[in-house]
Amino acid sequence: MTEFPAIVAPDAQAAVAARDRQDRLTKPPGALGRLEDLSVWVASCQAACPPRQFARPRVVVFAGDHGVTTAGVSAYPAEVTAQMVANFDAGGAAINVLAEAAGATVRVVDIAVDVDKPASPSIGGYKVRRGSGNIAVEDALSADEVTAAIDAGRQIADEEVDSGADLLIAGDMGIGNTTAATTLIAALTDSEPVAVVGRGTGIDDAGWARKTAAVRDALYRARGVSADPVALLRICGGADLAAMAGFCAQAAVRRTPLLLDGLVVTAAATVAERLAPGARQWWQAGHRSPEPAHTVALKHLELDPIVDMRMRLGEGTGAAVALPIVRAAVAILVSMATFDEAGITGAREKQ
Amino acid sequence: MTEFPAIVAPDAQAAVAARDRQDRLTKPPGALGRLEDLSVWVASCQAACPPRQFARPRVVVFAGDHGVTTAGVSAYPAEVTAQMVANFDAGGAAINVLAEAAGATVRVVDIAVDVDKPASPSIGGYKVRRGSGNIAVEDALSADEVTAAIDAGRQIADEEVDSGADLLIAGDMGIGNTTAATTLIAALTDSEPVAVVGRGTGIDDAGWARKTAAVRDALYRARGVSADPVALLRICGGADLAAMAGFCAQAAVRRTPLLLDGLVVTAAATVAERLAPGARQWWQAGHRSPEPAHTVALKHLELDPIVDMRMRLGEGTGAAVALPIVRAAVAILVSMATFDEAGITGAREKQ
Repeated sequence: MTEFPAIVAPDAQAAVAARDRQDRLTKPPGALGRLEDLSVWVASCQAACPPRQFARPRVVVFAGDHGVTTAGVSAYPAEVTAQMVANFDAGGAAINVLAEAAGATVRVVDIAVDVDKPASPSIGGYKVRRGSGNIAVEDALSADEVTAAIDAGRQIADEEVDSGADLLIAGDMGIGNTTAATTLIAALTDSEPVAVVGRGTGIDDAGWARKTAAVRDALYRARGVSADPVALLRICGGADLAAMAGFCAQAAVRRTPLLLDGLVVTAAATVAERLAPGARQWWQAGHRSPEPAHTVALKHLELDPIVDMRMRLGEGTGAAVALPIVRAAVAILVSMATFDEAGITGAREKQ
Repeated sequence: MTEFPAIVAPDAQAAVAARDRQDRLTKPPGALGRLEDLSVWVASCQAACPPRQFARPRVVVFAGDHGVTTAGVSAYPAEVTAQMVANFDAGGAAINVLAEAAGATVRVVDIAVDVDKPASPSIGGYKVRRGSGNIAVEDALSADEVTAAIDAGRQIADEEVDSGADLLIAGDMGIGNTTAATTLIAALTDSEPVAVVGRGTGIDDAGWARKTAAVRDALYRARGVSADPVALLRICGGADLAAMAGFCAQAAVRRTPLLLDGLVVTAAATVAERLAPGARQWWQAGHRSPEPAHTVALKHLELDPIVDMRMRLGEGTGAAVALPIVRAAVAILVSMATFDEAGITGAREKQ
C-alpha cells in the first residue's frame, strides 16, 4: 500500500490551552523560548494539556545496503552494515547508549542488508531483499519491492504504536546510504549535486568526487519523476529509505509524534511528506548534521533542528540526544507552578 | 578573600586517553561531533578515562535585588525576587523542574534579596545585605561587602564539593540583575551599551532606553577600574554577581566542572576568569540566550554554547537543559563497544 489516508493535524485546542498555561507559569511569558514551543507541540500531538510525559519512546533502526558502494562512495566496506546490526542487537552501538540515556528503547530491522541470513528471525521479519541496486546505473528496487518496503515501514510503525510507543524515532544504518539519501533530496528540492553532497562517514576528496558523480548519474536516471515519490524511491532510493518513509508517514497517520534524525531519515521524511502531505506536523527535527543536503531538506520541510552538535553518525543518535530536551519541555508544562499557585501577585499584575 | 590560588588545568593525559578511546568506539572517528569533545572534557576534569557518570550535579541559585530597578529597567517589580525565592524553596520554579528532569538538585541562597528576613535561616546563611546599590548613581557594595560576597560564593562552592557535588551549575534570580550583568560585560569587553543591552525578562522600547542609560551611567562611574575585577563588582556589579563570581572561580580551584547558564552567570564568570585566570577551562557554556551581552561574553571567554533554545529565564535553566547532553557524552565513553569488542574487522582496518 503506497496510498495514505489524509493526515489529521495535531489538536489546535490543546495547543491553545498549552500556550495559555505557559503564560500562567512562574516565569515571564516566552522566557523558556523553544522549550515552550516544544511543549505546545507535544500537547497538540497528544490532544491533552498538560501532556503526559513519554512512557515508551521507541527507536527503530532501519538497516540496508546499497549497490552504489561499488562506486567507491563510502569510507567503509559494505560488510560493516551487517556487523553493526549485530552490534545494535548486542547493545554496544552509540544509539543503544544514547537511547538508554534518554529513556528510550531500540529495535533494529534488516530491510535490505547484503546477507542471506538476517541476524535473527525477528530482525529479518520485514526483509525486502539483499542490498538495493546501484542507483548510479540501475533502479534501486523493483515495483513490487518498493511497495513491500513502504508497507514494511508502515507495519513496523503500527506494531510499535500498538505496543504503546508514544514517541517514535527512526534511525538508519547502511554503508552508502547517504548517497541515496542525498540523491532523493536533490531530486525533491531541485538541487545541484555539488551543492548537497557531503562527506558521509568521512570520505576524502576523491571519494567525494565519486559520490558526486554517482548522485549525478542517479539523478539523470530519475529525471522526470521527481513529482512521484514512489518512483523516486524505486529508481534512486532504496528499500531502507522506502521503509523509513513509510514509517515516518504512518507515525502521522497514527497521530504519534516523531523525532527526525539526520540526513538519511530526513531524506526519507521528505519523501514521506509527499506520500502523506501534512505528516511533517507530527515531526520535530532532532538535530542538524554537517551534511549540506540535511540543511536543504530541513529548510524544505520548514523544520528547525533542536540541537546542532556536528553529529554525523545516523542510527537515530541525533534524535536521541534531542529527546531529553523534549522531555524537559513536557516536564515544564506538567510540573511548574502557576503564579496563582505560587502566590506571586506582583508579577501576575504585569501579565 | 579575593585572592585565588593558581588554577590547575584539567588533566591532559586523561584527555588523550579519552580521545583515543573515542577513536576505537564502533563509529567513524569524530562522528559524534561535539558529544566527543564534551566527553573528553569531562574525562580531563575527572582525570579519569572513562569518566564516571555524574552522581550529584548541583544547581545553586543566587538571589539578589538591585537598586537600579528604581530606574525602571525591568518588566517586573522588585518584590518578585523574594516571591520567587519562596517558589524555588517550594519546588515550583522552572529550575526545580528542569534540574529534576536532568538528575540534579537545587539549592537557593539569599545573597542580597531586599527583605530583612530570609525565607529560611539556611537560605539566608550567606546574606550580605538587602539589595545592592543603584549602580547608575552609587556603588553597588562597600569594600567589605564585596569581599564578603565573593567569599560567600567560594564557601558555598566548597560546601557543595565537600558534600559530593561532581558537577556545579550556578543560577541567578533577581529583578534588575541583567542591568548589572550587562554593565560588567560591557566594562570587561570594552563594549558600547547600545551594542549589548537586551530586553531582559521582556521590557518595552522605553524600558530598553532607560536600561541603556543606566548601563551608560554605571560604566561612567566605573571608568578606569575595568582591569580590577573586585572594584568592578563593587562599583557596578552587586552582591549576587560577586558571589557567583566567587562560586565559578572556586569550582575551578576545586577541580570541579561547571556549566554556565545565561547572561547573568556568564557575566559573573567573566569576572571570575579575571579573578582566577584559567578557571574557564573547568567550564562549559550550557546555552546561548538572546541577550546580546551574553554572546559577547561567551566570545570573550572563548566558550561555545551547547544548546541555543532562545531561553532567557536565568535560574540555571539553560545549563540544566544542557546537562542531559553532557551526561550523554559521558555515557558514550562509558558504555559503547569498541571495534575489537564488537568484532567489526572491516571498519577497524580503515582506521
